[in-house]
Amino acid sequence: MLDQSRRRNLSAAPFLEAAAGRTPSRTPVWFMRQAGRSLPEYRRVREGIAMLDSCFDPALLAEITMQPVRRHDVDAAILFSDIVVPLKAAGIAVDIVPGRGPVIANPVTTAADVAALPVLDHEIDEVAQGIALILEELSDTQALIGFVGAPFTLASYLVEGGPSKNHERTKALMHSDPSVWHALMERITTTVIRFLHTQVSAGIDAMQLFDSWAGFLTERDYRAHVLPYSKQILDSVAGMIPRIHFGVATGELLPAMATAGSEVMGVDWRTPLDVAASRIAAAAGPKVLQGNLDPALLFAGAEPLQAEINLITQQARTAIAAGHATGHIFNLGHGVLPSTDPQAITDAVAMIHQQ
Amino acid sequence: MLDQSRRRNLSAAPFLEAAAGRTPSRTPVWFMRQAGRSLPEYRRVREGIAMLDSCFDPALLAEITMQPVRRHDVDAAILFSDIVVPLKAAGIAVDIVPGRGPVIANPVTTAADVAALPVLDHEIDEVAQGIALILEELSDTQALIGFVGAPFTLASYLVEGGPSKNHERTKALMHSDPSVWHALMERITTTVIRFLHTQVSAGIDAMQLFDSWAGFLTERDYRAHVLPYSKQILDSVAGMIPRIHFGVATGELLPAMATAGSEVMGVDWRTPLDVAASRIAAAAGPKVLQGNLDPALLFAGAEPLQAEINLITQQARTAIAAGHATGHIFNLGHGVLPSTDPQAITDAVAMIHQQ
Repeated sequence: MLDQSRRRNLSAAPFLEAAAGRTPSRTPVWFMRQAGRSLPEYRRVREGIAMLDSCFDPALLAEITMQPVRRHDVDAAILFSDIVVPLKAAGIAVDIVPGRGPVIANPVTTAADVAALPVLDHEIDEVAQGIALILEELSDTQALIGFVGAPFTLASYLVEGGPSKNHERTKALMHSDPSVWHALMERITTTVIRFLHTQVSAGIDAMQLFDSWAGFLTERDYRAHVLPYSKQILDSVAGMIPRIHFGVATGELLPAMATAGSEVMGVDWRTPLDVAASRIAAAAGPKVLQGNLDPALLFAGAEPLQAEINLITQQARTAIAAGHATGHIFNLGHGVLPSTDPQAITDAVAMIHQQ
Repeated sequence: MLDQSRRRNLSAAPFLEAAAGRTPSRTPVWFMRQAGRSLPEYRRVREGIAMLDSCFDPALLAEITMQPVRRHDVDAAILFSDIVVPLKAAGIAVDIVPGRGPVIANPVTTAADVAALPVLDHEIDEVAQGIALILEELSDTQALIGFVGAPFTLASYLVEGGPSKNHERTKALMHSDPSVWHALMERITTTVIRFLHTQVSAGIDAMQLFDSWAGFLTERDYRAHVLPYSKQILDSVAGMIPRIHFGVATGELLPAMATAGSEVMGVDWRTPLDVAASRIAAAAGPKVLQGNLDPALLFAGAEPLQAEINLITQQARTAIAAGHATGHIFNLGHGVLPSTDPQAITDAVAMIHQQ
């Protein structure tokens, strides 16, 4: 049984009200990658500290998680972590190389590699301690969103050995040796669920399943080789906390992804919210929408930014009025870009709160 | 007036029959980037020769264009060139850096930069001579497809100064200073049309407008800031040769792109052909479909490859039977990956010809 005693009771948090399909006191907003390189205070505290080390330092990960909440008045904190944290904790040799991304020392290609792949079998205490520190500082209108990477994206890193432009080895494995593929996905899923449960027991208020690379799959590959595992992860915390499911460039996958069970669907900026809502509702009934400002609009100045925020809000309202969605959490349609001016983020949050 | 005297009369070429909406003697197939790094004979002839130099060497570009035709029995040659060739010929300082891509010495950011941007005002004789050599070698069942890059993709290279992951400077310019943006697109469009007309006068049998980065735009940005220029390019050869329009990850843009006027729409692998056909037909009436095998499937072995080819053929037939498409040219849903085994390509062509 999962320990749920640390869950806060936040009846007035706009993010949680919207995630539950109720009417929030204001349009809630948070931004993917709001904690990170766009903030000078982040670059300061990370100086000389490797990315993965910072994810295993309770005080530091809590500080980084809180920085954008203090600065931008967002309605939710997103746990500062990385999708490979549970792999590292399981004992897999992985490092995050600046300018490149996660690099795996021994890529997984054979059945023997999969059988030897370590699975996470313990709590990641540093993250649990970090979450406790974050919850002490958050107000009761501010939610803490936990975060895990989806098994397809993790599998791609493990098979390719690092970031890949085309994921050809991963797709080849999936098609040429499905039994090895499914064994790999099962092991990754066990690890991800264990890490997610650590976060839930530590008291996160919601979670996002982040599938960076799912948008590189056809819908049929996604359904056959990926969806069952993402569903297992979401199922493992069903009824406990609101669940968000997001992948980049997943317009064609929304109907499939919507059946994985989340209450909230994150939408990439390429798909208008009302179009996304129709696809989601047709596949799995109406859900709460999250998104979907193009991160590049934060570089365009106040007037185009305001126009785009108005348009996205209007598309969400159209979807809700049509019965295709049950709410809207404002976000980007992908993560904050590192060179974004932090003031543009603060300004966008203020504009969104006035909607 | 454009010189059309060199146009061949190929009444039995399966590619051209399909492109014209007639029934070809076999399912025509060619692969984007079929000429290039996957072939050992390509790596041999390129040894010690810079990419852009090879595009301005008539004998070499003809040889490279012909290599995959000789090896794979494809139904069309695609002119070996690069989207930045007309920029280079116009006098813009651009180089293709191995492992990185096109790099622009002086990125374009201001109205003055745009006003000073050279425009192509002459024939690119080396390419015309190369086309003449190719046409001598092709049989009358093999078509030569010419090729130009779309103005948005070229604008992104010019504004960002090189390949960009997120195109934030380009999008910021588009939104913050539309008059500078439109002036830039006009100059690029003039250059691209001039290069295309060189190819047409030299005798290409068809053309493809390739928009690598359009899939990074919302449909509304695409319609307002890009579509008019892509349409001008396609319009400039209307009624002369069949026109193909393709962009990567453009599922949401197909309705807009279809209105630019091409006879053939290239479809990325992410969107099933029957779904793509419905979107295209609703926006602009039924067209010929081109696509859309995931290039990664060429790494998966014969059985998964055959299954996928069957499925794609079936989706095309479904679209044609429903009146949503007027034909099918088989292709990948993006370019051949450099590490592809050439034998897998040859095998795929044989499988497709048996459909």
